[in-house]
Amino acid sequence: KTHVDCMSSRKVLRIPGLIDVHVHLREPGATHKEDYASGTAAALAGGVTIVLAMPNTQPAIVDQASLVLAQKLARQGARCDYGIYLGASAENATELPALASESIGLKMYLNETYTTLRLDDVTVWMKHFENWPKDMPIVCHAELRTVAAVLLLVDLYQRPVHIAHVARKEEILIIRAAKERGLPVTCEVAPHHLFLTASDINRIGETRAHVRPMIANVEDQKALWDNIDIIDCFATDHAPHTVDEKNNPKPCFGYPGLETMLPLLLTAVNDGRLTMEDIVTRLYTNPKKIFNIPDQPNTYVEVDMETEWTIPNAMKFTKSKWTPFAGMKVKGTVRRVVLRGEVVFIDGEVLAKPGYGMDINLLPKAPHQGPRQLLGLAGKQHGPLMPAPLTTSIPSVPGVLPGPLSEP
Amino acid sequence: KTHVDCMSSRKVLRIPGLIDVHVHLREPGATHKEDYASGTAAALAGGVTIVLAMPNTQPAIVDQASLVLAQKLARQGARCDYGIYLGASAENATELPALASESIGLKMYLNETYTTLRLDDVTVWMKHFENWPKDMPIVCHAELRTVAAVLLLVDLYQRPVHIAHVARKEEILIIRAAKERGLPVTCEVAPHHLFLTASDINRIGETRAHVRPMIANVEDQKALWDNIDIIDCFATDHAPHTVDEKNNPKPCFGYPGLETMLPLLLTAVNDGRLTMEDIVTRLYTNPKKIFNIPDQPNTYVEVDMETEWTIPNAMKFTKSKWTPFAGMKVKGTVRRVVLRGEVVFIDGEVLAKPGYGMDINLLPKAPHQGPRQLLGLAGKQHGPLMPAPLTTSIPSVPGVLPGPLSEP
Ligand SMILES: [Zn+2]
Ligand SMILES: [Zn+2]
Ligand SMILES: [Zn+2]
Ligand SMILES: [Zn+2]
Ligand SMILES: [Zn+2]
Ligand SMILES: [Zn+2]
Ligand SMILES: [Zn+2]
Ligand SMILES: [Zn+2]
Repeated sequence: KTHVDCMSSRKVLRIPGLIDVHVHLREPGATHKEDYASGTAAALAGGVTIVLAMPNTQPAIVDQASLVLAQKLARQGARCDYGIYLGASAENATELPALASESIGLKMYLNETYTTLRLDDVTVWMKHFENWPKDMPIVCHAELRTVAAVLLLVDLYQRPVHIAHVARKEEILIIRAAKERGLPVTCEVAPHHLFLTASDINRIGETRAHVRPMIANVEDQKALWDNIDIIDCFATDHAPHTVDEKNNPKPCFGYPGLETMLPLLLTAVNDGRLTMEDIVTRLYTNPKKIFNIPDQPNTYVEVDMETEWTIPNAMKFTKSKWTPFAGMKVKGTVRRVVLRGEVVFIDGEVLAKPGYGMDINLLPKAPHQGPRQLLGLAGKQHGPLMPAPLTTSIPSVPGVLPGPLSEP
Repeated sequence: KTHVDCMSSRKVLRIPGLIDVHVHLREPGATHKEDYASGTAAALAGGVTIVLAMPNTQPAIVDQASLVLAQKLARQGARCDYGIYLGASAENATELPALASESIGLKMYLNETYTTLRLDDVTVWMKHFENWPKDMPIVCHAELRTVAAVLLLVDLYQRPVHIAHVARKEEILIIRAAKERGLPVTCEVAPHHLFLTASDINRIGETRAHVRPMIANVEDQKALWDNIDIIDCFATDHAPHTVDEKNNPKPCFGYPGLETMLPLLLTAVNDGRLTMEDIVTRLYTNPKKIFNIPDQPNTYVEVDMETEWTIPNAMKFTKSKWTPFAGMKVKGTVRRVVLRGEVVFIDGEVLAKPGYGMDINLLPKAPHQGPRQLLGLAGKQHGPLMPAPLTTSIPSVPGVLPGPLSEP
């Protein structure tokens, strides 16, 4: 399906390794859906070099023991870099802060999400807002009026909050109003809310289409695009389930998204609905600021802006062998990903081994620390299949590199 | 049941005519449940001389035609003074402000309340907050996290809001936090949330017990009492239904409350849980300020603090022939009510005729306007049964009158 015949004239852009602040990797507890090895392979294939992993695993990541277990599994399995969220429960508001520095942030589930992490009681929210360190992110699953409710706490406690997967007009408009009033709120939007609506449910299949927040109507979708200037991040909410689990009359909720996000966004650039700058801002610059993420030196993604293809029934690397975007025509693809000096993905093949990925809390935060220390941990684990570091010079301030690169 | 044998030594206190900011009088549309004549008789029997009537009638009061109809019915039927709320709908945010001065405030239903007035969409709330005059009250039915959500709008729009029938710990605690941060929020609590809990459901009967917000648990009840200092008003949420409608497997929601509120509160005074000052502040001083209610000259209530009685299966004046408080022992009763110089209630008899009640928007707001003009409208309608005005002097600043009065 790709235009192999015009390879030499393809427009190739180099962008920073992308940061997806919202993925579910299902390990521990549901590795038939996904695990660190498969999920981070999908990430790299999608141009994502850092994933922030959600805590609604089995067991959920709500205390030291579960965090240590998740860290071990991530260290062994991850092919790209990662951070791990802690999950807020009704009981753990006072004990979690001691673990904050080991995590990337606190995740609070404030709506019906079928996890044990659901927090119904506003007084519990208040306890977490009181206790969690002010310089560490809080990310909220909050829908409809619950967005407004949690924004009140942002105001009362004067601390930053990031709203996950904004999906509806009323959500983005109240966030706009709060931002205009100076509240420290940031937000993300998922590709499925930008590119799908309820009118896609028939194509997707009724049971498969279930996701929270549900894909909304055209007016909601339009509101997201109309307010794209205040959307801080794009994030997949990659939520893999098996085809059987999605075909079930009582389906699991969620879509895989890591391998399709960037192609969909590149298509929007080709269509003139977004710029490359819009993408880099929302998948690199802003996530880095909001989550205080250190640099990944010698890390970048090369995207081909011209290849046209149709999204197949399933993507290659996620264990979730279906996609809600099947059949959609896209223009743009990931050619190559270099992570900390190593080619980790090229032309459809993931080269990074499980264990190459690092906990971003172990990446040096000081500006003058070199890559030696950085690669210490990961270097032991990747094997000889990994090609030698590229010699290409990488700009110290990442961004869209000037001009298209010509292929060799 | 009353201690008629010690009448001459009874402790009688004089307090201002009380203001109940939250009553449902069911007229027009459901006068088998209540009407202005019956509901305001119940009000007077409970020491209430002003009722603020909710707009969820049939038709609902959402535009000029429905307001004019309600005004006419109220003028004909009311025995005590009254104000009428306008109801916010999804469509009327821009047209209502023109009617604001004819009303007492805007009522917004933000939760499941089985009325056509329910507002689900935060963008609709925002439109009402933008359009409704800043110096006129907005009252919200908001439960649980919806309290927090609407308080965000209070902050964003910097305009006062009154929260109806606070019932749960999480509601009163978020209101406390908002007040401490200086947000212009006020709130009311209903007697059934102060004096009943879920443990009363068996006594009341499962279907009859249905009310929104539902009577809560002991911890919620305790939180209301623990935070009584920030509760601005008591209000009945008098919501009469017939016994059949309450016994139905799919019951109507709500309790009658006008005739039982003050006895329950007086009992709390006798028990040392409240002071008379607490009652007068929350049923007169604060409602007057929050709703900008003019004086009712020569208006007061005499309460007997000593009569002990048991609340019967039904109270005398409301058409709703049941009460959730049946069987509860109380100490304290209303002896006499004087409204604008007329004895309108005495020892179990309502003397005021339908039509004596005035729209409080027609009461003079200027301090030096005399009672002549005031009585102009009402004077035409009350009949000869009404005794002549009392000559007792009334203090110009109402409050608890000093010392017990001795009976004649
Ligand atoms: Zn979520
Ligand atoms: Zn379904
Ligand atoms: Zn998620
Ligand atoms: Zn290597
Ligand atoms: Zn209500
Ligand atoms: Zn029931
Ligand atoms: Zn009500
Ligand atoms: Zn008279």
